[in-house]
Amino acid sequence: MSVLPKALTDLIYSLEGLPGVGPRTAERYAYFIVQHDRSISKKLEKSLSNIHDSIKLCPITYALIDASQEFSPLYSDPNRNKQIIAVVASPFDILAIERIGSFEGTYHVLGGLVSPIDGIGPEQLHINELLNRIKNDSVKEIILATNASVEGETTSLYINQALQDTGVKVTRLARGLPIGIDLEYADQITLGRAMEGRTTL
Amino acid sequence: MSVLPKALTDLIYSLEGLPGVGPRTAERYAYFIVQHDRSISKKLEKSLSNIHDSIKLCPITYALIDASQEFSPLYSDPNRNKQIIAVVASPFDILAIERIGSFEGTYHVLGGLVSPIDGIGPEQLHINELLNRIKNDSVKEIILATNASVEGETTSLYINQALQDTGVKVTRLARGLPIGIDLEYADQITLGRAMEGRTTL
Repeated sequence: MSVLPKALTDLIYSLEGLPGVGPRTAERYAYFIVQHDRSISKKLEKSLSNIHDSIKLCPITYALIDASQEFSPLYSDPNRNKQIIAVVASPFDILAIERIGSFEGTYHVLGGLVSPIDGIGPEQLHINELLNRIKNDSVKEIILATNASVEGETTSLYINQALQDTGVKVTRLARGLPIGIDLEYADQITLGRAMEGRTTL
Repeated sequence: MSVLPKALTDLIYSLEGLPGVGPRTAERYAYFIVQHDRSISKKLEKSLSNIHDSIKLCPITYALIDASQEFSPLYSDPNRNKQIIAVVASPFDILAIERIGSFEGTYHVLGGLVSPIDGIGPEQLHINELLNRIKNDSVKEIILATNASVEGETTSLYINQALQDTGVKVTRLARGLPIGIDLEYADQITLGRAMEGRTTL
């Protein structure tokens, strides 16, 4: 005999499918949904329906775009400099860089990072497509904006090598102290990188 | 110009409606949903649709039940002792007590706790209905299984007073050291309660 109604256990079970959501969190979400009026569940239901049909990948930048759009607006916008490309791992990384508010180049989404443990090799990432863009848009600078993790560094080294013969300028995001952190709380690797990358004032 | 497709920002916005979910967590959930095949979003969508129509409150215990059921199976089950009632704040507390696996009584869901700050008074809780059950089922013991919080204690004191004239035995869950905790890490209130409620060996 189940303690909760089947519809509710189904909902809890579905919510547990989300990343980092365990049984207790799923129960909390489900209870919140059933306790409140229908508007919350309806809104969520509506936004889930056809989410996969409403979006697609931009065929040039691999950013997520509306199914009705041909290219990413961040690419087709005439104000964006197509000769500067920030290379990121996932479409959400674009959001992070756009929040700075000052980057005027375009993006290229790799669709992941090289990670032998997860069986992801460079051939599964959109690296050849990046090489094509460099030719087509006569790109001047590639900014490797991958995570400061092992996978991010590996991917970034691989792409740098792949770009050797193109003559394009390859840069990567600076590593150093995050703003607002106390020196004594910075980990040694970050501090080491901050020392290596020190700049003259 | 929005950086993400509208369908995706809608989904993120809907997910932010869940308790404790901020913009970053909502983005993480949304990205997970769009990255994976349709099965995850379809499952979630399906379990959200009609969740409110598929469940209702048991008219006796106020537990959540299937819309097709007349009473909570934990109440109608002939093996459950109707003369012992565990009084809980929310339907999910039943789940916690059922997990012990040894409680053979029935439940009564208050639908909240007395909380003047949130404008919840005793009259909004299913306390009169509890008094009716005590008469109808000739109840012998009421176990107050509310949280060990200020609201839980207040509600429990209020119900205890309301039950004074019924002659029913009123107990509440023991307060003391949780299993597995080191004495030195127990807070002083818990330790004080554990001392007060000490038992002979």
